[in-house]
Amino acid sequence: MYSFSTNLKGDMDSVEQHVTEALKEEGFGVLTEIDVQATMKKKLDIDQRPYKILGACNPSLAHQALQAEPDIGLLLPCNVVVREEEDASITVAFMDPEAVLTLVNRADVAELAKEVKNRLERVKQSLIDNAHRYTTSE
Amino acid sequence: MYSFSTNLKGDMDSVEQHVTEALKEEGFGVLTEIDVQATMKKKLDIDQRPYKILGACNPSLAHQALQAEPDIGLLLPCNVVVREEEDASITVAFMDPEAVLTLVNRADVAELAKEVKNRLERVKQSLIDNAHRYTTSE
Repeated sequence: MYSFSTNLKGDMDSVEQHVTEALKEEGFGVLTEIDVQATMKKKLDIDQRPYKILGACNPSLAHQALQAEPDIGLLLPCNVVVREEEDASITVAFMDPEAVLTLVNRADVAELAKEVKNRLERVKQSLIDNAHRYTTSE
Repeated sequence: MYSFSTNLKGDMDSVEQHVTEALKEEGFGVLTEIDVQATMKKKLDIDQRPYKILGACNPSLAHQALQAEPDIGLLLPCNVVVREEEDASITVAFMDPEAVLTLVNRADVAELAKEVKNRLERVKQSLIDNAHRYTTSE
């Protein structure tokens, strides 16, 4: 298991906006955004459902991790996927930093990973608690 | 071990440019770029040496991985770090896709990871073979 996720009714844009806001409340900025649907259309002319990869970073925690382990940028930022399912519901999936950072095998990094995971779990809970706010496309 | 790397004499910009070209020759586009030095300065007012995280993606291999495992976007793109060491040499480090994708624990994904790793190893070799091309700042 390298992820945890929730599934919501709503439209992509509203859910993505709330994900970004909830991440911000926990100190994460979204540093990168990959529109996988647009990339696959452009590069391979393949149609697929909406799929975005948001790269979330808490600068203070990232700085501590980089001080401990210079190459840890290879495992940053912490990805959050927002994607549309076949039934038009939206899945929000979070990279599990504890699972991914076991690859580093260091106690100080494991502690940071636990802190990041706690924050991402609060982001997930915020999405569930505010599910009534998302506009459904129906 | 979650990475493999090489260390080169040269300046950041020349090395980064060759990394991007060598990735392109192996079918990877750079979809994201995080300037860690600039981000740390802006967000935390901390000075550090040049450090970039490039997010490399081979659309065809990524598409196969996403078909096999919808949440695999959490482990994409494949990061390449270009960073300056204390002695002004440049380290180029690659995320080891075989190590990272063991987290997924699927034979079909492991095969794709092997293919990605072979290509990234050729990128690393290209950097070593062309080391004479980089402008040194001395």
